[in-house]
This record gives sequence, C-alpha cells and structure tokens, in this order.
Amino acid sequence: MPLLTRDAKGVYPISITPFHDDGAIDLAGMDRLVDFFLQCGVPGITVLGVLGEANKLSEEEGLGLLGHALRRVNGRAQVIAGAGHVGFDNLERFAGRAMEAGAAGLMIAPAPGLKTEEQVFAYFDALTRRIGEATPVALQDYPQHTGVFLSAGTLGALIERHPGIKVVKHEESSALRKISRLRAQEAEGRRGRVSILVGNSGIHLPQELHRGADGANTGVAFPEMLVEVCRRFSVGEAAAGEDLYDLFLPLVRHEQQPGIGLAIRKEIFRRRGLIASARVRAPGPALDADDHAELGLLLDRLDRKLRDAGEAGVIEAYPVAAE
Amino acid sequence: MPLLTRDAKGVYPISITPFHDDGAIDLAGMDRLVDFFLQCGVPGITVLGVLGEANKLSEEEGLGLLGHALRRVNGRAQVIAGAGHVGFDNLERFAGRAMEAGAAGLMIAPAPGLKTEEQVFAYFDALTRRIGEATPVALQDYPQHTGVFLSAGTLGALIERHPGIKVVKHEESSALRKISRLRAQEAEGRRGRVSILVGNSGIHLPQELHRGADGANTGVAFPEMLVEVCRRFSVGEAAAGEDLYDLFLPLVRHEQQPGIGLAIRKEIFRRRGLIASARVRAPGPALDADDHAELGLLLDRLDRKLRDAGEAGVIEAYPVAAE
Amino acid sequence: MPLLTRDAKGVYPISITPFHDDGAIDLAGMDRLVDFFLQCGVPGITVLGVLGEANKLSEEEGLGLLGHALRRVNGRAQVIAGAGHVGFDNLERFAGRAMEAGAAGLMIAPAPGLKTEEQVFAYFDALTRRIGEATPVALQDYPQHTGVFLSAGTLGALIERHPGIKVVKHEESSALRKISRLRAQEAEGRRGRVSILVGNSGIHLPQELHRGADGANTGVAFPEMLVEVCRRFSVGEAAAGEDLYDLFLPLVRHEQQPGIGLAIRKEIFRRRGLIASARVRAPGPALDADDHAELGLLLDRLDRKLRDAGEAGVIEAYPVAAE
Amino acid sequence: MPLLTRDAKGVYPISITPFHDDGAIDLAGMDRLVDFFLQCGVPGITVLGVLGEANKLSEEEGLGLLGHALRRVNGRAQVIAGAGHVGFDNLERFAGRAMEAGAAGLMIAPAPGLKTEEQVFAYFDALTRRIGEATPVALQDYPQHTGVFLSAGTLGALIERHPGIKVVKHEESSALRKISRLRAQEAEGRRGRVSILVGNSGIHLPQELHRGADGANTGVAFPEMLVEVCRRFSVGEAAAGEDLYDLFLPLVRHEQQPGIGLAIRKEIFRRRGLIASARVRAPGPALDADDHAELGLLLDRLDRKLRDAGEAGVIEAYPVAAE
Repeated sequence: MPLLTRDAKGVYPISITPFHDDGAIDLAGMDRLVDFFLQCGVPGITVLGVLGEANKLSEEEGLGLLGHALRRVNGRAQVIAGAGHVGFDNLERFAGRAMEAGAAGLMIAPAPGLKTEEQVFAYFDALTRRIGEATPVALQDYPQHTGVFLSAGTLGALIERHPGIKVVKHEESSALRKISRLRAQEAEGRRGRVSILVGNSGIHLPQELHRGADGANTGVAFPEMLVEVCRRFSVGEAAAGEDLYDLFLPLVRHEQQPGIGLAIRKEIFRRRGLIASARVRAPGPALDADDHAELGLLLDRLDRKLRDAGEAGVIEAYPVAAE
Repeated sequence: MPLLTRDAKGVYPISITPFHDDGAIDLAGMDRLVDFFLQCGVPGITVLGVLGEANKLSEEEGLGLLGHALRRVNGRAQVIAGAGHVGFDNLERFAGRAMEAGAAGLMIAPAPGLKTEEQVFAYFDALTRRIGEATPVALQDYPQHTGVFLSAGTLGALIERHPGIKVVKHEESSALRKISRLRAQEAEGRRGRVSILVGNSGIHLPQELHRGADGANTGVAFPEMLVEVCRRFSVGEAAAGEDLYDLFLPLVRHEQQPGIGLAIRKEIFRRRGLIASARVRAPGPALDADDHAELGLLLDRLDRKLRDAGEAGVIEAYPVAAE
Repeated sequence: MPLLTRDAKGVYPISITPFHDDGAIDLAGMDRLVDFFLQCGVPGITVLGVLGEANKLSEEEGLGLLGHALRRVNGRAQVIAGAGHVGFDNLERFAGRAMEAGAAGLMIAPAPGLKTEEQVFAYFDALTRRIGEATPVALQDYPQHTGVFLSAGTLGALIERHPGIKVVKHEESSALRKISRLRAQEAEGRRGRVSILVGNSGIHLPQELHRGADGANTGVAFPEMLVEVCRRFSVGEAAAGEDLYDLFLPLVRHEQQPGIGLAIRKEIFRRRGLIASARVRAPGPALDADDHAELGLLLDRLDRKLRDAGEAGVIEAYPVAAE
Repeated sequence: MPLLTRDAKGVYPISITPFHDDGAIDLAGMDRLVDFFLQCGVPGITVLGVLGEANKLSEEEGLGLLGHALRRVNGRAQVIAGAGHVGFDNLERFAGRAMEAGAAGLMIAPAPGLKTEEQVFAYFDALTRRIGEATPVALQDYPQHTGVFLSAGTLGALIERHPGIKVVKHEESSALRKISRLRAQEAEGRRGRVSILVGNSGIHLPQELHRGADGANTGVAFPEMLVEVCRRFSVGEAAAGEDLYDLFLPLVRHEQQPGIGLAIRKEIFRRRGLIASARVRAPGPALDADDHAELGLLLDRLDRKLRDAGEAGVIEAYPVAAE
C-alpha cells in the first residue's frame, strides 16, 4: 500500500480497540471493524490513537494489534499508527517496527509540556532526525489534550520545514478559521499543499469542508455517514451533505463528550453487531442504565429521522440493533 | 419581584452586554434585549455573566447596567446578577448593592484555585457569612472555566448546607449523569429539592431535561426556542420538544465555540435587529468575512428547515434579517 | 520623578498592601512601608501587584492607595503601578489615572488565555495602541501565574517592537538561561538594552545577577538584603554578595511558598514593626500556631547567623522583634 | 528483604537512571550508584521514578533495570519501584513482575485527570483490587505533576481505607501544614500511623522533619547530607541538622528547578565520579557552558562552606571533582 501523502482525502476512521469482557483484545472484533471500515469505502484507518486506548496497551499488544489490522486490511487501504510515546528512543523503535510492518504513516502530536514555538520547532527537528523525513506523519493538532497551541503560522512553518508532515489532523476547538488560514498560505504560494483532515468528532465537519478540509480522521461510530457527507461535498452537493450530517448531529454531539464518549461509541459499535463487548479498559468509563436508555432514545430518533428523510440507506449495512 | 427560589423553572437567558461601536454600553439595545426576553416569556434574566463581559466593565458600569435592566424589567421577571469578584470585600459590597437594587439573586462560581473539597466547603462557608444565607445564589458549576470540579456528592452537601443556594447552574461538560445523581439525592430524601438549570449553551438540553433539569440558564441567541423546548417537555411532549431543538442544534453547536461564540451570538442578535453593533470589548473576538458567510449559511439553513418543519413560528417575532 | 527607563537598576520592592484587622487599608502602615523602602535606598517601589492583593481592592481603593503612596514618596523614588485589568477599557482608564497621578510606569503581564506567539504579539500591539508607547511598561513574565510562556526570542521581539517596554520582570521558574539569552541579543546588537529585574522571590538572585540581571522586583520581606546583595555584585564583590544572600536563603525559600507566602511576609513585616496587622483579605491565607512557631525558629536562626557572620548590620534599622 | 512498612524512616533516594552517551542504560553506573546509596546508609532506594526517566524506558528496560538494581542491592536495602502506568492492565502486570523480582513496594500516584475526591477514592479502590492490599504502596502526593490535589482529610481516609499504603511521599508545594494535620489525625487516634517521607527535592526538609516527617524520598545529588540531617533530627540535634542542611540549601534550591534540575543532578553525579555521562534521554534538558560554569561556582562555594564549617566530612567519600 502506498505511504500517506499530502493528497490524502476522505475519511480515515480512528478505530477503537475492541476488548473481550475479560479485558483481552478481541481480534475477531477488530477484523469485523476493519471489514466494516473498508466496506464504507475509506482510504485508510488509524489505529492506536487516544480513542484506541493505546496508552493502556502494552507495547507488544499495540504492535500486535497493528500487525493484525495490517494483515486484515491486506493492502486495501492505508493504516496510520498512533505514536504517542513520550521518549524518542521508544518512539523511534516503535516507528521503525510500525513502518516495517506496513503502516502508511504515523500520527504524532507535539508532546505535552512544550511551551513556546521555539520549543515546538526544536521538538519536531529532533523527532524528525530520529524517525527520518521519509516517514509520513499525520500531525495531530489537539491542544485540548496536549496543551500545546499552534498558530496557523507556526503550523505552516512546520509543514514547510518537514516534508514528512503529510496530514494535519485538525482538532483544536474554536478554530475553524485556522483551516481557512492554512489554505490561504497555499493559495498565496507560501508553501505546498498539505492534507487537512478534521478530528474532534467532526463536530463542525460541514463548516470545515467548506473552509477547505480534505476529509475527516475521527472516531464517530457512523463512519459511512462521514464518507457520504465528504462525497457529497466533493461532487458539489454541499447542501445535501450538510442535510445528511445534520440528521446525525445529535449523535455526533452525544459521542463527542470527553471521557464517556468512548464508552458510548463502543456501545454503538456493539449494538451494530461489530464488536462483542463495549468494555473500556480500566481505568475508564462505562455506561449505566440511564446512559443506555438515553443512547437508545437517541438512536431511535436517528433511525426515525433517517427514514423520514429517505436517507436510511446510508447505514443500511450495519444498522443499530433494537435493544 | 420575588427572590429566586428552589422552584425556579424554565429559561433564564444569560444576557450579552450590548456596546456601541465606540465601546460604550448601548442602553437602548439593552432595553430591546430585555423586552425581547420578556416577550419570550422567561421567568428571569441573568446579567453580568461571563457572556455579559462583566470582567471588562468597571464596577460602576456593571451596577449601572444592572440597575438599568431592573428598571426596564420593572418587576415583570427576576433578574440574577453575576458576581464574579475575586475578593470577598468586593463581592460583599457588590452583593449588597445588587440586592438592594432589586436583584432576585446572585450567580456565583467557586473561585479558581480551590483545589480540594475541604477548600470548597470552607470557601462557601466564608462567602455565606459575608453575603448572608438570605441572599439567593445560583451556584455556577462550570469547571471548564474555573478548574474547580464538584462531584454530585459535594454539590449535594453544599446545597444541604446552604439554604441560600437556590439554583445549580449545571454546565460541567460530559456530566449528564450528575443531574441524575442530584435528582436521586432528592428522591432518596437525602436533601430538599434544588432547581437545576443548564448552561453550557444547552448543547445537551433535551437529555438534561429527561434527566430532571428544570430549564436552562444560558445565552443561546434563540431563547424563544429554549422556552418552547422546555414548555413541550413540561407538558409531556418531549419528542416534539427534541424535534424542535434538533432543528436549532447546528446553530447551538456553532454558538457553543468558546471565544468566538460570543461574537457569533452578538452578530445574531444584531441581525435580529435587537442590538445596533456586534462589538465585543477588547481584548475579544470579532468575525471576519469567512465567519460572516459561514454564519449566514447556517442561518439560511435554519430558516429553511424551520419552514419545512412548520416550526417557523417559533422565531416569528424576531426572525434573522437576510443580509 | 522621571519615568521608568531601560536603565532601571537595583531593587524595586513589590509592596504588600497593609490592612487593619477589620479589613480596611492601613494607610499609616503604608507610610511606614514607604519610608522603610526609601530608607533601604531603593530607586522605586511597585504597588498594586499580585502580592499587593490588587485584585481584592476596589478600583477606588487601588487608585487611592497609589495616590497615597505617591504623595508619601513625594518624588524621592519611582512608583510602578500594577495593572492587572482584564479589559482594555478598564486598563486604559486605570493607566491614564495612574500616570496622571505620577506613576513612573505600569507593570503589565500578558493576559491569561493567550495561547500562541501570534496572539501575544497582537495583544501587545492592541494594548500599546490603548495606553500609548509613551507609557513605560514593566513586562511581567510570570508564566506560572498567567500560563503564557514567552521564549527569549519572543520576548526580545516584543522589546524591539515596543519602546514602551522598559523592564522585563523575569520570574519564569527554571529559566535562568533566558536572562543569558536576552543579554546575548543585546551583545550581538540585535536590539537595544532592556532592564531585567527578577521576581519569583529572588530565589535565584545571585545566579541571575551573574547572568546579567539588573536587580530585583520582588516582595521579599528583607529588601535591605536584596539592596546590599545587588550593591556588592555591582561593585565587583559578587562572592560577598552571595554569602550575604545565602544567609537569608532559608527565609527566602520559606517566603516563596505560593499562597501562604503572602501571610508569612505580612507577619514578618508586622514583627518588624512596620505594619499593625498581618491580615490578608479574604479569601486568603492566615498563619496558625505551628506556622508562627516555625517562622519564629527561622527568624531566630537568621538572627544568629547574621550575628555569627558579622552581617547583623544589614537589617539593623528594622530587626525582627522577638515574640 | 522485608517489604515496605508504615515504619519506614530515613532517606530513600530516588535514583536517576544513568545512560551512556549513546543512550543505552549504563549498568555499571547503576552499580556504582547503588553502592554509593548503600554506603550512605539508606534503608532503601526508589528506582523508575519520574527522575529516573521511567517514561522514556521501554517496559523491558524498566524491568531489566529494576532486576539489576535488586541483584546489586542483594538484600541490603529495600527497593521501591515507580509504577507510573496509565492502564490498570499494564500496572497490574508490572506490579506482579516487580514484586516477584523482589521489590519492597511500589510508588504510585493518583492518575492525572482525577477531578474529585469521589473519583480518587474509586481509583484507589479499583487499583487495590488489581494489585492486592498486600502490595505495599508509597503514595506519591505530587499535585504539581499530576494535577490531583488531596486534602489531609482525603489522604487520611485513603490511608485508613487501604492498609497497603505504607508511605505518603509528600511533595505538594506550600503544604507544610499537611504534615502537621496528618500527624494530628494519628495523635487523635483517628487512624494508625503512616510513614511520611518528603519529596520535592527536600526544599523544606528541616521544617518538614519538625512537623513529623519520617525522612526523605527524593533525588538530591547529596543523599549523604539528607541522611545526616535526618540522623541529627532523630537524635535530638535538630539545630545542628538544620545548620548542615542550610549549607547545602543553595544547591538543593538549584537542583529543584523543574526540567533542567535533572540534568544538573546527573552532572553532579558525574562530577562525583559515579556515572560516566550526564546524558538525559531525548527529549530532555542538557547543560550549556553557562550552566556548567554556574554549577561549578555553586559547587565550589559549597566546598568552601563545608570546610569553613568543619562539615567537609559529610561528603568525604565522593566529593565533587574539580573541573
């Protein structure tokens, strides 16, 4: 499979990591997830992200899961591996093993604790010397999580400086304008094009696509909707894309809750028949009876609205099972 | 007007503070806002909140605005005054003047910097000694802003301990369960009833009403929608309430952006003909051309959806002007 | 009195604000403090800083205290006024009144919430348009408090851009190297000289003076020691300066504790006979019996060490009263 | 070697992890460090702490280093293993392997992200079910690092609830009073005794010993000084203990700088001939020429002061080499 490039486009789901009720990784569930994502028509998948509970896996579990996913994908899509290691030695070793196994690139965020632009530049210079400019990077710009804020100018300078940065995973909240500014840098010829995929649950996806985003790189439990929304935008049917998106917005908003959102997503995947257990590794959230009932109501409403709008076909393959 | 009680119910809009382009407070705009809120049928209004840019007003400007609003309201609704003062001397003086002027209560948040429950309890004990238990308080539970997280248990203990706490303004994100737990405390007879009004832009309002919230205390630029959603829930038409809410959700989500959200709200109020200028006092956000176009699209979509759903009447009195 | 310049040198104590036990400002205590600072031979005093509990004073109290201090100083030293206002309207009004009253400059920190260098530059550009480049500014670089981290490069660019910035109040922790880098910018002719005065309780004062600091701008309760240490460094007796400093280091370290440090300092000033009450305005810290005993032990040890070292004369005028 | 108990007393150095210049772990250096600590007369050593750069080691490196240290110690002291794993599965596996290898206990901090006491209690309940109450825990109370603040009351309740908590590693800044309150809980019979060892570079060690601390658990590069200070306090010679401590305070203060402090400590150990390289794994701090000169001056001053005070013998075995 080709490596990640600056032309990346469309939806790259961030995969959850399915566990059995006893906490072991559910590889059969991972297979079903992979198959499902491919069936949605995605160009790639990200594993071992924050949503994938990467920091609760052992190093061997993480690499094992990556290898398993790569074998299941079998060249039909790109696989991006989240690389959240604190030390460069660990990161370099992981990067080597992941790329050797066939990953298309790494998702890397600036380390928490970087305080100034000078430190950010030094960090990426040093990191790049370790993993090499040839290793494609999806730069995760997620300051709510890392505490590291990058202006559009700084981000542009990093992109210019490091050809290895292929994708900006844009997920700073309240930062729609940043996409416009990144695109303006390109329109003004100040640097070459970069792919911009949005994260943050795609809570502003239509606005972000209007402003020049190339797609999404997020873990919403209805990736086929994201795919179809992006497709409509790409063929000039933005209004129809946003109409579809808005039908799902109540769910997207519900999933976007930090913390419990992960448990909600796992439960939706479970109800869709893709994974056997919604278990989150400890310490982590779990739904209670009220949460289940609330989610059930939201899913019923979605189902009804999709039917009313004649859009039920969008989630035809794996509808949500009635409880 | 009676003071705030634990039976507070419905929508208490958090008012913006309108400014002229030269930065002076626009009292005529404030009059129009007050009239509009009252026309929506709200039981009360909150002025001098964070959204009201209270921390950029001088003490005299703040008290002046409160007095002006009280005179315009003229007993037709309750007016809650935000009291964000750092020191107790300033807070006590403000509280005295605000209550004397006719406020129905004060909105008070735990001070940033409180680290432990012990400190939180000591803080409210000391604060209550200053302002007196007779002064009604809407306790703003907004940890994203203050950094002070209160468990349902702690919040319940505060409510029990201080009869002056009449309302919990619930706006912790990812905390729907907290409402259920506060209501469970009451169902189990562990303490008396408190009013729960939700903030955080009402981004989960239908879910929160299902879980027992009494209404909303937030600054969404379509308060008549909040009023109608709460009304439908209160008469057993929850599904119809949520249907209406969902039509506005794309806007609510757009307004909810921290920072620029305030500028978006002011611009909507301006387009609705209620205020003359969308100016935010410096330092503060302002919309650029892209932001204006984006907002225009969202408002057009709302308009079309309301008409399609036969709900256009909800914002009949002050529709959004075509640009 | 001349305005603050980039040649500022020596010790500018940050003054506490003395209160009576009933919480009112103790103007007679303020007079004694002013007289004491002048007797120490300082070129200036800062009032209304964080240590001065400025955020717990009303606007009128703050301006009143500034005016009182200016009259007592009566042209014998510079008075810098802390200006911690959130909004530019309030800041501009305060700045005008403070400078008109005779302040030599304002102490201003970047506003909490600034996330990127771009935002920092925009902030100071806008702020400067409000207060004017002619108003001298002591730029407080205190990221532990504001959350805004400035690299030496950014700080240098701000100094170059705004002639009004006369002093950098350096109090980032773990940032001794920043002083060396600021001085290197000057040695390399990249910009003109700026005054660097250190804060953060002077916990690294000798190291900072070695690296090029011009003095201190901090609230240590023994300013005469700071004056003498700086004097010795300035006449080439660095080792003797550091010897003296080290005798006080146990106290400096004790005072430096965030929160309770303010109460400790006030108590020391009280024991020195300068103020009548060690009261901190609520909410704020107070010493308990253990704290008093502990401080007593430390002061006794200091006393003994000063005598043993033949340095007792340094605090001759206002020794610490035996309890 | 017996397991950690609530009677732990004295100095448990937090060990650095020595690396060769190429980044590999320097096992011979580790041997010398172990021998040195034992020669200082310590009852135990902590490895794999934050100071030990545990988060930059692979899991195998960490367990390998622990095993190596245990073999070198060979039963002559206790070895505490830092356990900073995010997920309970990883933590449980590590705990099992570490205890099986002969560790005397684990150092565990509350996970960053815990927001309320309720969450803290739930966390330790769940964690204890995983590792078992029989596994001795040194509870690291380090809110500057974790963001989790525990009141003395909460800490006391945790100690009471979990017999496995043997040691409180006290390193909240500005929290001397917490030690007094923990001891008061015991004096009042509210719970059994716990060992309190102080961290935070021992920057307030004499005050903490006066208030009832049992010793220190920190990484100061002169552990023999800590040992001797604690010894003098324990035999009723507190003043002599504090006199010795104060001679080292300029160094302790210098080492305590977050970030660069680790590089300073490694350089001191290098100059003392214990490790071959002061290298910190990337990303991490390194000393520049100014830092080296500054440290040299401080060490020379220490040397002179120890000789003047007749205390040079304290660091006789491994003095600091002249550069």
